[in-house]
Amino acid sequence: MHDVTHPHQHVEAHFQSSESVRDVVIGLADGLTVPFALAAGLSGAVASAHIIVLAGLAEIAAGSIAMGLGGYLAARGDAEHYASERLREQREVIERTHDEEEEIYQIFEQYGVSRAASQPVLDALKQNHPAWVDFMMRFELGLEAPDPTRARRSALTIALSYIVGGLVPLLPYMLLGNGPEGIALALRCSVLITLVALAVFGAIKGRLLGTGWLRSAIQTMSIGGAAAAAAYILARLLNAA
Amino acid sequence: MHDVTHPHQHVEAHFQSSESVRDVVIGLADGLTVPFALAAGLSGAVASAHIIVLAGLAEIAAGSIAMGLGGYLAARGDAEHYASERLREQREVIERTHDEEEEIYQIFEQYGVSRAASQPVLDALKQNHPAWVDFMMRFELGLEAPDPTRARRSALTIALSYIVGGLVPLLPYMLLGNGPEGIALALRCSVLITLVALAVFGAIKGRLLGTGWLRSAIQTMSIGGAAAAAAYILARLLNAA
Repeated sequence: MHDVTHPHQHVEAHFQSSESVRDVVIGLADGLTVPFALAAGLSGAVASAHIIVLAGLAEIAAGSIAMGLGGYLAARGDAEHYASERLREQREVIERTHDEEEEIYQIFEQYGVSRAASQPVLDALKQNHPAWVDFMMRFELGLEAPDPTRARRSALTIALSYIVGGLVPLLPYMLLGNGPEGIALALRCSVLITLVALAVFGAIKGRLLGTGWLRSAIQTMSIGGAAAAAAYILARLLNAA
Repeated sequence: MHDVTHPHQHVEAHFQSSESVRDVVIGLADGLTVPFALAAGLSGAVASAHIIVLAGLAEIAAGSIAMGLGGYLAARGDAEHYASERLREQREVIERTHDEEEEIYQIFEQYGVSRAASQPVLDALKQNHPAWVDFMMRFELGLEAPDPTRARRSALTIALSYIVGGLVPLLPYMLLGNGPEGIALALRCSVLITLVALAVFGAIKGRLLGTGWLRSAIQTMSIGGAAAAAAYILARLLNAA
């Protein structure tokens, strides 16, 4: 407790690693699930492994770009939102000083702190406008200053995780034979290795996020299984119709 | 400024609507992009509109379930993370009172507020343990109490938006003829209506999120276009190989 910088560093490290973990989780979870389910669905309807692999790879290309660019723009949007809100607070601290003072009292009142007890904090903030603005950003609006390198890192992490995840369920279709029997075998192999991969991934995710590895493994496998089953049944029904 | 509850209500309304908007944006953006790109990719490689529609619908089934359930678990995970961190803070406030007091001084020191000026706030919080815990959750850890109904709402919003978005690019393949010429026509129609839909969606999104409608329209169209172009080129190359 004499290490003054510790709590803040702790919070920042916690945020940063959990954001990268979240990006890998987003990309890998969807990458393992959607191409897997698409290939399983097509297995019930087409006789050519070539078309299944083609559709799977086209899906991986589309999905990784859509998710990666989407992640990039989302992170950029967060950064811009923070910057525009910060400008607004900077103006308000100068132009609407009295309202902003009132807001500080109200923030503390939510925690049962009286006006008199908040007064010294308000006095200190009024002598330091940049700190006052930072204080309002975090305590009134609940916004964190975003990491400027995050957008690009986030986009690449999500896209690569999606590609890695998406190739797993397609491998059996690439390696095993063509025709109805080859596809039936590839489907069984794909289901097996993908469910194992989803379980391992879910267990690691549960470990990292502290939600329990077994529960997370079962949940992750269930999502992939449900998506694949729905796609398979839908494709079968449509093909029979 | 005499309306004491106003700022807090404002913040909550802001969070809630932006979360629902974010869910619609997530579902619609991916729904308009990935099935569109997949169908475009397959148009360059297969001669049957039936297979393209089948693959597209299987993708929509898989994608909406994967994203909806993924959103559900992510929201549930946030709620559980909040609950477990809150329990930890509750313990620490009692068992490590001195460390937690030190952390309050340090929070305020970041904003140039001296120990003496923070003292009255600390004294008030020490008389009210639940408020102290709430204060640490928000100001030390930067965590908001999550809305308990959010997980289910988020899952449904994302899944339905994905389905609505995904059906748009598939309509031409469903309605227009089969064979290479029918597919070529359907592809052109699909590109046209999907790019228009992406532009309209992007413009509305930009309006709602305050990032400028024109820029947002162009960005959203570019992501969809890039994903579709990549899927198309990849499928063409693989088919030629």
